[in-house]
Amino acid sequence: MTDLPQRRFVTAAEAVAESTTYTLNTWLSRPDLLPCEELLLVRATMDPGKCHPFHHHPTREEIIYILSGQAEQWCGNQRRILHAGEMVLIPKGEIHGTYNPFQEPVIFLAILSPANAAEPSTVDVSETEPWASLRQGLPTCR
Amino acid sequence: MTDLPQRRFVTAAEAVAESTTYTLNTWLSRPDLLPCEELLLVRATMDPGKCHPFHHHPTREEIIYILSGQAEQWCGNQRRILHAGEMVLIPKGEIHGTYNPFQEPVIFLAILSPANAAEPSTVDVSETEPWASLRQGLPTCR
Repeated sequence: MTDLPQRRFVTAAEAVAESTTYTLNTWLSRPDLLPCEELLLVRATMDPGKCHPFHHHPTREEIIYILSGQAEQWCGNQRRILHAGEMVLIPKGEIHGTYNPFQEPVIFLAILSPANAAEPSTVDVSETEPWASLRQGLPTCR
Repeated sequence: MTDLPQRRFVTAAEAVAESTTYTLNTWLSRPDLLPCEELLLVRATMDPGKCHPFHHHPTREEIIYILSGQAEQWCGNQRRILHAGEMVLIPKGEIHGTYNPFQEPVIFLAILSPANAAEPSTVDVSETEPWASLRQGLPTCR
């Protein structure tokens, strides 16, 4: 994208779709789209029964901000049901997970900083204790 | 706030309202509310006929993400009408302004990084050229 250094605006037509195991994503701010240094921004749609299970980002702080629907959000061993307009702050390296045991999709923004950070960007811990057992008794999300 | 180092979640009841000349703000992530290091987050409502005129942030990168309504958004001398789900990236030190010449309030998220940065955090340039004349012929916003 030759005009990348000059790009500032991301309209609906310019955002970049991505499908993952957990969510349908729309990327808004990423270094291959814009000359961002501090801020990554992605809008994610998570269907009922899906989750992004326990993981952490060793090199980035994150905010998850709910746009619509509800999320069962974990940060460490704290759990909270978040609604539209609510958020969680996830310090660098802190284990967290987002689950949707509800009837409707949840749509949220994930904001991460800094934009350029060392790999690995995400480390899954969902199969290790205590995280593997933490949601025992709650509706399964895959 | 003695539990600040442990705070992660910000629900509707915990967000902090602020009224400015330009907008009604709801602060979600700020170092006096949460142990954020990288990310500031505020939700702003700008009424019809209002604006946050040309200014810059010498020490922070910013994203403005539209939640509802429309904004006449400037970044440098580029102007774009942004709708819900669209955004602008404002590199550190780049002059920008948000105007609402429309009939409805515009509600947007302002995301700034890093959280802890040197003052001044905002420098107004709206009375100096070429910024003072740039919107000549467009509906006045105050």
